[in-house]
Amino acid sequence: MIVVLAGGVGAARFLEGVVQVVPQEEITVIANTGDDREFYGLKVSPDIDIVQYTLAGIVDEKNGWGIRDDTSYTMQQLTNYGNEDWFQLGDRDLATHIHRTNLLKQGKTLSEVTNEMSKHFGLKLRILPMSDQPIATHIQTPAGLFHFEEYMIQRHCSDEVQDVVFIGAQAAHPAPGVIEAIKQADAILLAPSNPVVSIGSILAVRGIHDALHEVSGQIIAVSPIVGGAPIKGPADKLMRGLHMDVSAVGVARKYRDFLDEMVIDTQDAQLANAIEDLGIPVSVTNTIMRDSTAKAELARHMLRAAGLNYS
Amino acid sequence: MIVVLAGGVGAARFLEGVVQVVPQEEITVIANTGDDREFYGLKVSPDIDIVQYTLAGIVDEKNGWGIRDDTSYTMQQLTNYGNEDWFQLGDRDLATHIHRTNLLKQGKTLSEVTNEMSKHFGLKLRILPMSDQPIATHIQTPAGLFHFEEYMIQRHCSDEVQDVVFIGAQAAHPAPGVIEAIKQADAILLAPSNPVVSIGSILAVRGIHDALHEVSGQIIAVSPIVGGAPIKGPADKLMRGLHMDVSAVGVARKYRDFLDEMVIDTQDAQLANAIEDLGIPVSVTNTIMRDSTAKAELARHMLRAAGLNYS
Repeated sequence: MIVVLAGGVGAARFLEGVVQVVPQEEITVIANTGDDREFYGLKVSPDIDIVQYTLAGIVDEKNGWGIRDDTSYTMQQLTNYGNEDWFQLGDRDLATHIHRTNLLKQGKTLSEVTNEMSKHFGLKLRILPMSDQPIATHIQTPAGLFHFEEYMIQRHCSDEVQDVVFIGAQAAHPAPGVIEAIKQADAILLAPSNPVVSIGSILAVRGIHDALHEVSGQIIAVSPIVGGAPIKGPADKLMRGLHMDVSAVGVARKYRDFLDEMVIDTQDAQLANAIEDLGIPVSVTNTIMRDSTAKAELARHMLRAAGLNYS
Repeated sequence: MIVVLAGGVGAARFLEGVVQVVPQEEITVIANTGDDREFYGLKVSPDIDIVQYTLAGIVDEKNGWGIRDDTSYTMQQLTNYGNEDWFQLGDRDLATHIHRTNLLKQGKTLSEVTNEMSKHFGLKLRILPMSDQPIATHIQTPAGLFHFEEYMIQRHCSDEVQDVVFIGAQAAHPAPGVIEAIKQADAILLAPSNPVVSIGSILAVRGIHDALHEVSGQIIAVSPIVGGAPIKGPADKLMRGLHMDVSAVGVARKYRDFLDEMVIDTQDAQLANAIEDLGIPVSVTNTIMRDSTAKAELARHMLRAAGLNYS
């Protein structure tokens, strides 16, 4: 069994490679839910949606989120009623949030809802939210404390980052199966996701970080920072705010207490020594997932680093 | 102040006449909420929506409900997730239900939500739900007890009607302002709505029927049954099931204990005597609301019947 710790777009693209190499039935994704937020009373789980839409082949590939060719008639009318419109939710996408919210209201857990929806998408891999309890990643800035989505989408990451907090994480439990999956995995792959808010929020859930010290499989990470900048998203601003190096070295340092190998891009080869100085083995490969083949190659590389051979 | 007891499509069209004759600020609509139901966890109030959409000029005139030129992408996706699809909710229409549900969840009453949405629609008249508590009109049939929307839309009114019950009505209170509006009105007009389920459910709310005996204004009804059949909807099946005459006489008999005058269509003129035999004065006019002028004429006629002259 392979476990992937996953954020949003980067993780979804990475998983497109993993599913080419590993049978879906052998994959468990532990998904960040720290970005979850209610809009108009509907529960939105952006990272779960991105992963599901991507693997279901319906994602809007240009944005990396949302459903392809979606329309926005419902949001236009919601705006007419005086609602905020900074978080774009298409009509088909809204069906996901309506359906999820309704099932949660009926007493199902987010794990159960996610599992049910995966089946509707025809997915065979298991997607576990990091927790069934609400956890809300917030960014402390000079202008105040903002939900991550507000900081990123509404305020365009324009505020200086002073701190990142995961409200609810200390009280939350990992979702059923999360700890077992980590401990029993043959390999644990950290997707090229934001180390502060995506992987960071997963690590903040009580018990998950500790479980990474009790694994039998190898833990392999790939840096989302290449050439000193994130492939996508605001990881650089967040890392800088937390006084981390905006580089594969900074990422490795974040994961150093449990990481078995750091995978970095060929253009960052010169950083290998600095990471090895942290006591972390390094391998260098092409990590830019330009196409389907590159995605599969990266997955294969990371699995080989974990001692697993998939052809 | 004019009060109108209102169901759905017939009432909305009737109100299009009333607002041509009476300043909106002087109109209070008491709307049936017995047809309300949750779909996908969203609270739908069909009759309030029909009245608001119609008076806002955005109603789908062909159907009489929903928003003109609406699309249905959200529902298509909801159906993909295994949801039922017998109650059509367009994308723009869904915004209404999302917004209303969200405001209710925030602790607002249906009255407050309705008032707020009326303002967004630019309406100056006051629309009061008959109650802020849930009331669910159900139809007893040989096949079982069905919510009215299920009976009408899902089962196409195909079952024999054995009884009609208003679940919750005995425990519900009239919404704030309903009783005062009735008692203080200069005229109370019963729209050409289904006497069993639309007006009937309003009358079933504790205190409303009694208040109609304590009015200072005249109470005038117009028959929704013309030439032995309803203009629209299943009133005939429901009336027959309850052993009522499917005619203006049957309607008048339902309202006889509080009604001051029954307005019937010219093609039903021969029924005047039978209604007058019940002790109810009758007037005959064109009640078929073919166009805007006919709507205004009917409103003017009913207000005159109530002793009020609007030019």
